[in-house]
Amino acid sequence: MITNSQRAEVLAHALPYIQEYNGKIIVVKYGGNAMINESLKSDVMKDIVLLNLIGVKVVLVHGGGPELSDLLRRLGHESRFVNGLRVTDDVTAEAALMVLAGKINKKLVAKIGTIGGRAIGLSGLDSGLISAKTKDPELGYVGEITGINAEPIRDLLERGYIPVVSTVGCDGEGNIYNINADTAAAQIAAALKAESLITMTDTPGLLRDRDDPETLISRVEVESIPRLVSEGIISGGMIPKVACCAEAIEQGVRKVFIIDGRLPHAILVEVLTDEGIGTMFVSKSSEA
Amino acid sequence: MITNSQRAEVLAHALPYIQEYNGKIIVVKYGGNAMINESLKSDVMKDIVLLNLIGVKVVLVHGGGPELSDLLRRLGHESRFVNGLRVTDDVTAEAALMVLAGKINKKLVAKIGTIGGRAIGLSGLDSGLISAKTKDPELGYVGEITGINAEPIRDLLERGYIPVVSTVGCDGEGNIYNINADTAAAQIAAALKAESLITMTDTPGLLRDRDDPETLISRVEVESIPRLVSEGIISGGMIPKVACCAEAIEQGVRKVFIIDGRLPHAILVEVLTDEGIGTMFVSKSSEA
Amino acid sequence: MITNSQRAEVLAHALPYIQEYNGKIIVVKYGGNAMINESLKSDVMKDIVLLNLIGVKVVLVHGGGPELSDLLRRLGHESRFVNGLRVTDDVTAEAALMVLAGKINKKLVAKIGTIGGRAIGLSGLDSGLISAKTKDPELGYVGEITGINAEPIRDLLERGYIPVVSTVGCDGEGNIYNINADTAAAQIAAALKAESLITMTDTPGLLRDRDDPETLISRVEVESIPRLVSEGIISGGMIPKVACCAEAIEQGVRKVFIIDGRLPHAILVEVLTDEGIGTMFVSKSSEA
Amino acid sequence: MITNSQRAEVLAHALPYIQEYNGKIIVVKYGGNAMINESLKSDVMKDIVLLNLIGVKVVLVHGGGPELSDLLRRLGHESRFVNGLRVTDDVTAEAALMVLAGKINKKLVAKIGTIGGRAIGLSGLDSGLISAKTKDPELGYVGEITGINAEPIRDLLERGYIPVVSTVGCDGEGNIYNINADTAAAQIAAALKAESLITMTDTPGLLRDRDDPETLISRVEVESIPRLVSEGIISGGMIPKVACCAEAIEQGVRKVFIIDGRLPHAILVEVLTDEGIGTMFVSKSSEA
Amino acid sequence: MITNSQRAEVLAHALPYIQEYNGKIIVVKYGGNAMINESLKSDVMKDIVLLNLIGVKVVLVHGGGPELSDLLRRLGHESRFVNGLRVTDDVTAEAALMVLAGKINKKLVAKIGTIGGRAIGLSGLDSGLISAKTKDPELGYVGEITGINAEPIRDLLERGYIPVVSTVGCDGEGNIYNINADTAAAQIAAALKAESLITMTDTPGLLRDRDDPETLISRVEVESIPRLVSEGIISGGMIPKVACCAEAIEQGVRKVFIIDGRLPHAILVEVLTDEGIGTMFVSKSSEA
Amino acid sequence: MITNSQRAEVLAHALPYIQEYNGKIIVVKYGGNAMINESLKSDVMKDIVLLNLIGVKVVLVHGGGPELSDLLRRLGHESRFVNGLRVTDDVTAEAALMVLAGKINKKLVAKIGTIGGRAIGLSGLDSGLISAKTKDPELGYVGEITGINAEPIRDLLERGYIPVVSTVGCDGEGNIYNINADTAAAQIAAALKAESLITMTDTPGLLRDRDDPETLISRVEVESIPRLVSEGIISGGMIPKVACCAEAIEQGVRKVFIIDGRLPHAILVEVLTDEGIGTMFVSKSSEA
Repeated sequence: MITNSQRAEVLAHALPYIQEYNGKIIVVKYGGNAMINESLKSDVMKDIVLLNLIGVKVVLVHGGGPELSDLLRRLGHESRFVNGLRVTDDVTAEAALMVLAGKINKKLVAKIGTIGGRAIGLSGLDSGLISAKTKDPELGYVGEITGINAEPIRDLLERGYIPVVSTVGCDGEGNIYNINADTAAAQIAAALKAESLITMTDTPGLLRDRDDPETLISRVEVESIPRLVSEGIISGGMIPKVACCAEAIEQGVRKVFIIDGRLPHAILVEVLTDEGIGTMFVSKSSEA
Repeated sequence: MITNSQRAEVLAHALPYIQEYNGKIIVVKYGGNAMINESLKSDVMKDIVLLNLIGVKVVLVHGGGPELSDLLRRLGHESRFVNGLRVTDDVTAEAALMVLAGKINKKLVAKIGTIGGRAIGLSGLDSGLISAKTKDPELGYVGEITGINAEPIRDLLERGYIPVVSTVGCDGEGNIYNINADTAAAQIAAALKAESLITMTDTPGLLRDRDDPETLISRVEVESIPRLVSEGIISGGMIPKVACCAEAIEQGVRKVFIIDGRLPHAILVEVLTDEGIGTMFVSKSSEA
Repeated sequence: MITNSQRAEVLAHALPYIQEYNGKIIVVKYGGNAMINESLKSDVMKDIVLLNLIGVKVVLVHGGGPELSDLLRRLGHESRFVNGLRVTDDVTAEAALMVLAGKINKKLVAKIGTIGGRAIGLSGLDSGLISAKTKDPELGYVGEITGINAEPIRDLLERGYIPVVSTVGCDGEGNIYNINADTAAAQIAAALKAESLITMTDTPGLLRDRDDPETLISRVEVESIPRLVSEGIISGGMIPKVACCAEAIEQGVRKVFIIDGRLPHAILVEVLTDEGIGTMFVSKSSEA
Repeated sequence: MITNSQRAEVLAHALPYIQEYNGKIIVVKYGGNAMINESLKSDVMKDIVLLNLIGVKVVLVHGGGPELSDLLRRLGHESRFVNGLRVTDDVTAEAALMVLAGKINKKLVAKIGTIGGRAIGLSGLDSGLISAKTKDPELGYVGEITGINAEPIRDLLERGYIPVVSTVGCDGEGNIYNINADTAAAQIAAALKAESLITMTDTPGLLRDRDDPETLISRVEVESIPRLVSEGIISGGMIPKVACCAEAIEQGVRKVFIIDGRLPHAILVEVLTDEGIGTMFVSKSSEA
Repeated sequence: MITNSQRAEVLAHALPYIQEYNGKIIVVKYGGNAMINESLKSDVMKDIVLLNLIGVKVVLVHGGGPELSDLLRRLGHESRFVNGLRVTDDVTAEAALMVLAGKINKKLVAKIGTIGGRAIGLSGLDSGLISAKTKDPELGYVGEITGINAEPIRDLLERGYIPVVSTVGCDGEGNIYNINADTAAAQIAAALKAESLITMTDTPGLLRDRDDPETLISRVEVESIPRLVSEGIISGGMIPKVACCAEAIEQGVRKVFIIDGRLPHAILVEVLTDEGIGTMFVSKSSEA
Repeated sequence: MITNSQRAEVLAHALPYIQEYNGKIIVVKYGGNAMINESLKSDVMKDIVLLNLIGVKVVLVHGGGPELSDLLRRLGHESRFVNGLRVTDDVTAEAALMVLAGKINKKLVAKIGTIGGRAIGLSGLDSGLISAKTKDPELGYVGEITGINAEPIRDLLERGYIPVVSTVGCDGEGNIYNINADTAAAQIAAALKAESLITMTDTPGLLRDRDDPETLISRVEVESIPRLVSEGIISGGMIPKVACCAEAIEQGVRKVFIIDGRLPHAILVEVLTDEGIGTMFVSKSSEA
């Protein structure tokens, strides 16, 4: 049982962290278990609303893998695969639009509303937010980002809204592309010159020994990433995630975090307490 | 062939109409053939961008009936009907969210972008734009509007964006409702104190003799609607449409139009030329 | 030991309280033990800075009784008393100015600065903040407030500063008056149409049985104050304090609290948790 | 007869041109037949008001040759000529002030008002708009521009007014100078960093064969002007006009046009249709 | 010889007057000797610039009788008179436009510029400032004011300019009218809710005995004007001037002055010293 | 006796000086006799209010030597001296805070209020205005300035207030330092990029022969200060004062004056008349 006095102590201890982030932009890449488990989802949305209220400018970027597969299955649409990657044909691109920009995005926005926050859902199609082109003709409408127009996000932040972004994009002809959410979040953070990018995953962060959570590496200088890859510490699905983190840092984001979205209120713990969770990426040359 | 000199004459003749609408809000309820036929769709989007550019504040509100049926069919979801009205169960509500707020809304927004306009797509879920409740428990998530929060629309208009609104709404628990687009457009126009509400249909307007387009009634005072209903001139599907028009007028919208969306550039003809098309509804007590 | 997860829970629980006070004005009357005990003082200043950071507009109003007596003693100035009240002669008024507007006010402002807050110290003499006149010729420069100019406070709040106010006032001739801080805080709260006035005391609040802290009355409708006085529950030094609270409520302050300044972070507990401490005064007719 | 549908087509076709000029500044040098013929005058003023309404910032600069001669004749003032140029003595300078800044300027402003536009008439004397000095002592008060203060024009444009400028200037002693309107328009366009300068003349533009309108040169790179002069294609009164155009381009105006003011709505045809009339001057190095 | 110390005393004594007029609007009707004598003219312009600089919003309204007669004479235009009033035919109206809006207005504006002030000259034709109609068909274009659009004046005052207004007006057809400057100044002052209207004349003010300047009436309540007229104290040309003053007071101008423009710096003496010159008109019901 | 006409002449002559200082910042270091003599004090405050009203941004910086000694004496606190300099122990620092930031500062602010000005009193402790550290451990809390935060002064100037600054400072631990007022005024002027710094003294300025006021040096280029020191013309207490002046000039203040505060309205004479009093310091390289 926590007493009121302890509660007050906790709040008071948050002061320096609130001072640090006041008026700054944080981009949260939302995904994994935190997006599926209703209780964790609710925690994330509360964290976002709280940060917004205490003067942090939060942008939520989400993907939606499993729900897209689910819709395609229900539509009886069989996917073709090339080198293990799903080909995005017309039907798939449209399904992505419906699931990402329609179902997931708007439900998140509604959820934030029920908590008392003011969110507006954007897709990469709104006011040219994400311009894209084909990455590989064989993969169809899998998009590579060609430009970010951060103006609509900035306009909404200035008016106090929480922008929630689904990562579909389009080209000048109106073709729709499915975009990797980690990449999009990193580039949006870079375009906004965000203070932080927080990527939620289903791992505790970067582990020296994959099977031992005690071996968490809490701070990585991006300059040492190649070495960590060659040592096999960064491997598999972590490689592209870490690459996004590195790119964000290189383009001017101050701090990038990979955190464990399976922990309740993981974002608040990371942002407002002294014991960061997960792995923080910074540049050697930065003072942080 | 129109000569340049004639072109200039036409532009010059638009002057008083531009003067009349400058800085005013027009809500366009977009639907019917104009939404299906690609050429007409393109015309409507160009009209919207043009009006936005010449200083009119345009809000586009859309429904999307046929595409919703299409998705339900593809999902193999059989609809139940009560008194001829489709019951909106969970699956249907979610499908509506995907089709309306995802596919249709974002494609419109992207289309406007390719023409050079700046649009942002909103649903009734964004920042509490449309609050709703069940109309009739038997019909499930068919929504009755309980409140409009016009602030996000106003914020976007002020920043020069074209807000495009899909008419799904939600309640305080986050339940999602499918909302009739005519009703929503009328209430949004009222909440914005719009100068005009333009409803696009597949008829020439209100006809004295349904089979004779020459009998178009070009001006109706809302006070005379009951008489027109009792005379059978307003009947069938026109009754709820006209009721929305009347309500908008009563709540302060200056002029309401039902126009024929099958004509190319119908909106421009209505707004910027001297020969209005379709039927205009006004209040007897207004000076217009 | 509180875990990080518990810390995050606590922060998350503060959300609805932060939502309630966001953008609102809270006037804190600072006094008693919280002003003397260095640890409590530090807690209060941290609470103020935290509230300011999370979007609450805080105004700190302070008195300074014991330090004034102390200075007078050191100056060898013997005070005359009338009906037990100290007569404020020229020397005393000037000493009050030095102690209140100089020593205490500026030290508070400096303290807030060392925590990272931005405070500006005002007295009632700055830009006509507190106009006063003699209350009783026998008491000399004991001031009765004749007007509050809240404009300088509003100007500072708008620029994000924390105004710290010492309660000396002056009249049109430049005569200086010592003003009761409870009264001044109540009238400043009223002039600012503050959401809340929080008065820090050395009691747990209003007790049904003065000797039993368990008998705390947590909510008092101002309409019932006369009865509580006649029953002897409000008595002695509590009578004028409660009168100030009642006047603030009558002049439009929504909620007034008498809280126990001896508890650490008493303000945060009151404002940001669900178990208010102390006694809250409201109007019967208000909805709160 | 143009149908409504054709009208709408014309308006829709104007979209890309309106997009191009939206928010940009166009300086129109008004003169020649368009200033004498009442119908053409009316057309020009309507064009100006229309452009202003659709978001173009229009500045009208005018001279007034024939009316000045007319007034001098009526005043019985015989002009002295030096090398074919009229000497501007005191009487002439004052007459110029009366005709240009009084009669012509204010009648234009009134005309715009009757059409529903909001114009304010400025002379070079207002708030130091045109500073001048003697060009040649023999010619008296024929002014050479020494400075343009574009601030009053910018202030009026920002408030939505149409500035109408008569080209008299003055020096620090208050002496009044008659200024060539082509030169003044070019320098004003340069000072405003205008998008375009449109000079209205009584010719179709620059002709390869002066007697054959079919030989109109529709685009001239300013770098090729010396060659066109040496070839005799630019000759006579065209030489100084073209020199003004070239200077405007060199000082940063993007496009300069010499158009035929004898055609109705010549400005609208030039600005809002795809078939420019007249001759456009650009810089080789510009991308246009 | 005035010493520097005396100079400083004088400036210091002006303090309460500057405080009184700071941010307020003063309309000065400029005419008579002060407009003809170059030294007095220079004094008036300096006074205007000084008042503008110290935070008073000054509007200068001028007529120009003698110069109009002079131009008509030079043009050989013989005036017809009806009941002693000059008939304003086309030629006369146009001459008024040239003399008032051209010559006099722009020379004043230039004069202010040489002193370092920023003035913009307006006529009643600019942006609909003075709407007018025929007063009496027999008199031709002698205008009666039908409306004042004070917006352009307010816009210029806000940007710090000194608006200088010539009193020609026009109707919806663009017909030009000569307007009495006293009347126009009074109505402009009323439309601007000016603090003061100062009318410069060639008399010391209202005299009880016309031949004895010692009998100056320094304060007149407008309620007593009828009595003063019946007593013959207000008579002749003073009657319409006083009527204008009374109307301005009735429409909300706080104080109206008739001052002697033949005294150097008469405006400064009236506004910034304790011994008003001339006659002040106020309302009995006002507190002044 | 000065006539009204002479008064008006004086005001009119102030025009170019008002033009020069309009919108500029003047820092006045207030001290010496002007601070003790009630009539002179009143003159200074009137001058300040007048300058503020006519658009000059005035900052008043004050010390308070004699009153501090007086309080220490009354407190029976004996000062220790090192090399003739008083050691500032805890008691002295606190007394300085009370006298400077309390008594003197707030009385000045109240005085300005009684004249009709709007002043707010700041100390170096408010919002980190003056950061300081120990100059010499032997001297205790005698402060050396380590930083000026001019933001609170700028914020107050923008809102039209007259900031009145007492020169106590503090360090990061909240220790309080007494700061030399001449130094503080110079550094504040530098941080504000002030147009002028005016230091009030009890001498006529810099005299070539200390005993002959006729030998006043009215203009000193800072480059020649070393020579003047070596010649003994600048000596004694003048040396540090002149050093402050020189430093202000080097850091970008345009003009620095040492004036005789014993003359009534010395500031107005210096700022608004043609015969500067006292000594002006400028840089050789500046154009002034």
